[in-house]
Amino acid sequence: MEPGPCSRPAEPGICVSGSPGAGSAFPASLPSGAGAEPGSRPGTVAAVLPAGGCGERMGVRTPKQFCRVLERPLISYTLQALERVCWIKDIVVAVTAENMEAMRSIIQRYGHKRISLAEAGATRHRSIFNGLKALAEDQPDVVIIHDAVRPFVEEDILLRVVTAAKEHGCSDYDFEFGTECLQLALKYSHTKAKLVEGPPDLWKVTYKRDLHAAESVIKEKISQEICVVMNTKDEESAGHLLKEVLKKELNCVNVTSTVLDHTGGNVQKFPTDQCYSFICVNVVSSDFQEIQKFLSTLEESGLPLLYPVVVVLVHCCDLTLAPLAPKMESLMWIRSLAEDMKKRNVLLSGLLLNYSKDEQKLQESFQQGASIIAALVKERSSALAGQLLLA
Amino acid sequence: MEPGPCSRPAEPGICVSGSPGAGSAFPASLPSGAGAEPGSRPGTVAAVLPAGGCGERMGVRTPKQFCRVLERPLISYTLQALERVCWIKDIVVAVTAENMEAMRSIIQRYGHKRISLAEAGATRHRSIFNGLKALAEDQPDVVIIHDAVRPFVEEDILLRVVTAAKEHGCSDYDFEFGTECLQLALKYSHTKAKLVEGPPDLWKVTYKRDLHAAESVIKEKISQEICVVMNTKDEESAGHLLKEVLKKELNCVNVTSTVLDHTGGNVQKFPTDQCYSFICVNVVSSDFQEIQKFLSTLEESGLPLLYPVVVVLVHCCDLTLAPLAPKMESLMWIRSLAEDMKKRNVLLSGLLLNYSKDEQKLQESFQQGASIIAALVKERSSALAGQLLLA
Repeated sequence: MEPGPCSRPAEPGICVSGSPGAGSAFPASLPSGAGAEPGSRPGTVAAVLPAGGCGERMGVRTPKQFCRVLERPLISYTLQALERVCWIKDIVVAVTAENMEAMRSIIQRYGHKRISLAEAGATRHRSIFNGLKALAEDQPDVVIIHDAVRPFVEEDILLRVVTAAKEHGCSDYDFEFGTECLQLALKYSHTKAKLVEGPPDLWKVTYKRDLHAAESVIKEKISQEICVVMNTKDEESAGHLLKEVLKKELNCVNVTSTVLDHTGGNVQKFPTDQCYSFICVNVVSSDFQEIQKFLSTLEESGLPLLYPVVVVLVHCCDLTLAPLAPKMESLMWIRSLAEDMKKRNVLLSGLLLNYSKDEQKLQESFQQGASIIAALVKERSSALAGQLLLA
Repeated sequence: MEPGPCSRPAEPGICVSGSPGAGSAFPASLPSGAGAEPGSRPGTVAAVLPAGGCGERMGVRTPKQFCRVLERPLISYTLQALERVCWIKDIVVAVTAENMEAMRSIIQRYGHKRISLAEAGATRHRSIFNGLKALAEDQPDVVIIHDAVRPFVEEDILLRVVTAAKEHGCSDYDFEFGTECLQLALKYSHTKAKLVEGPPDLWKVTYKRDLHAAESVIKEKISQEICVVMNTKDEESAGHLLKEVLKKELNCVNVTSTVLDHTGGNVQKFPTDQCYSFICVNVVSSDFQEIQKFLSTLEESGLPLLYPVVVVLVHCCDLTLAPLAPKMESLMWIRSLAEDMKKRNVLLSGLLLNYSKDEQKLQESFQQGASIIAALVKERSSALAGQLLLA
């Protein structure tokens, strides 16, 4: 079970480059109190995820680890959080026999790597036991036991867990708070194990409201960066103006920009690692070859695999000069293109901005446009893909 | 501090009709294990809300009780939850001196009744003490101490609390879990008091993710009913067809319908108690007098005071017969009307449905229309008000 190549884009704020265990895999911002210096090797680490629960407190039929958040099962987010940490060599998920096939297809569909499956037992501890048995041959130095329904686990806390486990072995603390899990680990896997209480960010999805919260947190996370794509470097252009308005309106969001070259979308230049929202200003020519090239490059980048990507095609024109109706009709091709892109997890919509000569009207229009863009980026509603909006 | 008339519409699932303390104020669905039979009188009950916290765990500057959820401060939801229980005679909110004025304007703006203010102290207990002092003259039988940041409190649990307090006085349980609050209440207000651990629904908004969850829970709550407003009883009409499609698409939502009379919106017939979403199908005539009448009646009903009300004006026409562009242009008046209504907390948008003679196209269009309506109802995004959407 060797780690596969990091074929998907990295996560917001997390560095996955570098070989497993190498110093570059640790974020530069690792807190000094983390217990390990950047560059230290955490040794052979594996993880076991007990995921055999039936989610009875959730009040829904689907076990909570399989409930969908932004159309993707919750457990896929947890796997993503663990597998992006390159020094975790193996990840074993313990699922019930009836969910084994569903779990396999989740792994395949979302391209998860370094995952193997074990059969869950009747209890959480039995599931952990089965997971540890699956790891017995590899004899990892440390095994992290992680709830399948805690998707927001960060590399630094995992590193702290591993370092503490290696330094202290099995402390009194462990025996007090996690006796049973720990004894299982000690007895059957010939490895040290430690059960650690996590920080508030590690919260467990238990009730239905937690699913809502998880969706909001994920939406917020992937909406932290917006890239304005334009066809000119001219700082007086509509694209630059919109970028400035967006910066003001969304003061917590990082608004970047890129100029599209004439061969289409040169996504190499895009901040693809963290950016799931693209605002293309006046890029579209009437034969829309450029935008199709851009969308193809976006798709090839793998970005829409894990999260819905929002693309807003902004068209600026002075509506006092050109009548509105034919303008809107001329942009109706966006509808059919959007229908097609929706299947590929790209939410495409059009925005017609009134580029008036009247300074105040211009400002109003751009302000409203920025609010609309903010809503499209924040909500990522697939039902509204393909609409032509007006500001 | 007499209870005012229940001038605002009732809450989803909660009955506020009947005089204070009367049997009819209890929901018919009161659980049999609630500890009190429907019709039993809970006696003189008051509530104290300590709201002097600074919300440091929230990671935002605004104290959490004043953070906005759907544009309304969280504490207003908590007040609403308490004041809709007619047998709670007085509600005292303890806020810091610097927030006193803000709190007064919240009470005024959202029409809260039976509320008085006390100054919060340096600690939660000091705030409760001050709240109880404010009640000392009234000598209520029972005082409920309720966190300002637990907005989802239901009448049945409040009734259980009060009944338990009256039956058991101050049990060992109280002394174990709530000694200080309780002693304060006993010492200074000459009244029995009990601190009760609530059910999971009573969860406290503590972290930022809880605000997200609260917003989602509230959005879901107010989106449980959709009213389709039509201009004909004809069961073959577009309105009836859309209603049926909505019922299928949104199987958890109660879809009702009403026929608009020719004098405009006869809101008396609307399920205004629980409905914050109106889908008006082909109601709009070209001079839009009818829709203006409807909107006025809606506003007069007080519905938009507490929650944003979604109104979608659906226009059905066969787009193979009529060209799209002039049709869209003819509906552009919706934009300016929406701009005006947004100030009144009504989110108005237009939806053009392709009423094709081709059965399959018709179905597709209505399905897409239903998805768009579901998104508008669910998200309640003010940025998208005024848009003309197409299905």
